[in-house]
Amino acid sequence: MKVTILGNNSALQAFGRHPTAQAVSVFNELLLIDCGEGTQGQLQRYGIKWRNLHHIFISHMHGDHYFGLPGIINSMSLLGRSAPLHLFAPAALQPIIEAILNVADTTLSYPLLFHPLPEGAAVLVDEPLFTVTCFPVMHRIHCHGFLIEKKSRGRKILPDKCADYCIPHEAFESLKEGADYHRPDGTLIKNEWVTDESPKPKRYAYCADTIYTESILEWISGVDLLYHESTYLEEDREKAALRYHTTALQAAQIAQLARVGQLLLGHFSSKYKDLEPFRVEASAFFPNVMISVEGNTYDV
Amino acid sequence: MKVTILGNNSALQAFGRHPTAQAVSVFNELLLIDCGEGTQGQLQRYGIKWRNLHHIFISHMHGDHYFGLPGIINSMSLLGRSAPLHLFAPAALQPIIEAILNVADTTLSYPLLFHPLPEGAAVLVDEPLFTVTCFPVMHRIHCHGFLIEKKSRGRKILPDKCADYCIPHEAFESLKEGADYHRPDGTLIKNEWVTDESPKPKRYAYCADTIYTESILEWISGVDLLYHESTYLEEDREKAALRYHTTALQAAQIAQLARVGQLLLGHFSSKYKDLEPFRVEASAFFPNVMISVEGNTYDV
Repeated sequence: MKVTILGNNSALQAFGRHPTAQAVSVFNELLLIDCGEGTQGQLQRYGIKWRNLHHIFISHMHGDHYFGLPGIINSMSLLGRSAPLHLFAPAALQPIIEAILNVADTTLSYPLLFHPLPEGAAVLVDEPLFTVTCFPVMHRIHCHGFLIEKKSRGRKILPDKCADYCIPHEAFESLKEGADYHRPDGTLIKNEWVTDESPKPKRYAYCADTIYTESILEWISGVDLLYHESTYLEEDREKAALRYHTTALQAAQIAQLARVGQLLLGHFSSKYKDLEPFRVEASAFFPNVMISVEGNTYDV
Repeated sequence: MKVTILGNNSALQAFGRHPTAQAVSVFNELLLIDCGEGTQGQLQRYGIKWRNLHHIFISHMHGDHYFGLPGIINSMSLLGRSAPLHLFAPAALQPIIEAILNVADTTLSYPLLFHPLPEGAAVLVDEPLFTVTCFPVMHRIHCHGFLIEKKSRGRKILPDKCADYCIPHEAFESLKEGADYHRPDGTLIKNEWVTDESPKPKRYAYCADTIYTESILEWISGVDLLYHESTYLEEDREKAALRYHTTALQAAQIAQLARVGQLLLGHFSSKYKDLEPFRVEASAFFPNVMISVEGNTYDV
C-alpha cells in the first residue's frame, strides 16, 4: 500500500502547496481521499493514471476537501470512461453534483454511484483484498476519517518445505486457511511444518480535519501509518481548538497513544512557509514522524 | 486596458494549460472573466492581487468556465475581504454557490451580490470610466460574450494652447465637454483652438465558447482586441460545429468581418500540443492574430 500526497495544505493555497488530496494505491486499485481544487492537475503532474480509480472518499464539505471533484468527474467523462465510479461523501454533496451536471446538460459516460456517508463508523468498501472503513472525527462540521486495511491472505506457504513433503499445489489454498494436509497414504502433515504466520496486514488511517480527540483511538490504534492533520504549531494551540484543528504536538500525542508505526503530518496552515518546526515539535513526543510533501509517496 | 490570460485551454487540462479564465485590468479595477479550476493558483502564480477585484463574469455553466469560482469566493472570505463582490453569471449558478456555502456552514466576510445574466444583451456594469455589456453567443447551452468599453474622457486639453489663451484650470472640465470659453472681458475662445479630439475609447470583446456565428458582429464590430475561442483547427471543422465550437480559421473570418484591431485566440483543445498551426491558419485570413499564452498580458 502506498500513499501519494497531492495536496498537503489547508484551505488557502500558499508556497506552491495545494489543498487536501491523496492517492492511495492498494494492490491494483487506486483510491482517492479528498479532492481539493487542482487535484486533477496534481494527478497529471505526478503521472498518476486514474484507470484503476473506482473509489473516491470525501471526508467533509469544506471546499478545500472537494472543490476539485466536479472537474475530475467531468474530465473522466470527456475521456470516455465507462467503468463505474463509487463516490463516498456526505449526503449534501449529491444534490450539488447533480445540479452541476444538470445545468451543464451533461450526461456522464459512466455510472457515478453515490454512497452517502453514515453519521458514525461503517465499512464502506469490502473487496477481496482490502476494506475501507469510515469513522467520525471531530470538526466544525461532520467529518470522517478513513481506515484502509489490507486483508490477511492466509498463512504463508513455505515452498521448500511443501516440496520436501511432496504437497501438491492444489492443496495450497486450504494450507493458507490453516488446515493440515492428509497424504493419500493417510500420513498427516501438520500445517505449521509447511507454512508460516503471515505478516500482519498493513493498515493506513487518514484523519483530516479534526480537533485533538482521543475518540479516534479505537479506529487508528496500531495502524502502520497515520496521516493526521496538524494545521498549526503549539504556539497557535488556542486558534487550533477554536477552529477544530490540531497542532503538530497534539497529532504526535495521538500517534503515541495509538502506538502507530509512523506519523505523517499534513493540512498545514498557509501562514507557515517553513514546515520543519512541525517535525521538530512532533518528534519530541513521537519519534517516527514525517512531514508530508506533495508528490512524495509513502509506503505503508 | 490590459488582459492577462490565466487559462487558455478547453475543458481537459493538458500541456500545462489551464481551463478558461482571464483578468482584465481597466483603470484601477480588476475584472475576472470566467474562472476555471485553478484560477486562484494562477492569480498567485502571476502575482495578480485581487484587492481591486469587484466584478466577476461567468459566461456559461460548463465547468471549465467556473469550477475555480467557489475556491476564490471562499479564499477571499478566509482573507477577511470586506468589499462587496459582484458576480454576473447564469441564474443557475446562484443556488449551487448557496448550497456550497450552506453545507460548509460558511458565512462570508463580505457581501456576495449575485446578478443573473439576462437571456440577451444588457449593460451589466456602468462605472464612471467604463462599461461592461453582455451579449449572446451560440453554444450548446446558453452562453454570453462580454464587451468592455472605456468611456470617453471628453475632448483632450492642449495645455500649451490653454496657457497661451490664459484659460484657468477651473474651466478645463467644461472644455472637455466641448464648451467654448468666455473670458471675463467677453472674448470668446473657441473649444477647438485649445482642445483636440480624444482618441476613441478602447474596447475589448470576449467570445468563448461559441460556434461560428455572425450574429455577434453587432457587438464586437471594430473592437481594438477580440478574444475569440478557437478550440479546433480546420481539419476538425465538423467536430467544432457539432460541439458548438469554432476553428482558428473561422475565428479569423469573424475578426475580418468585424474589422477588429487584433485577434487573440484561445480555448484550445487538449489534443493540440503545438499551437503554432492556429496562428498560421488564422493569419491567412486575418493578419493581426496572436495565440494566447498563459501569464501573458495583452494591451488593448
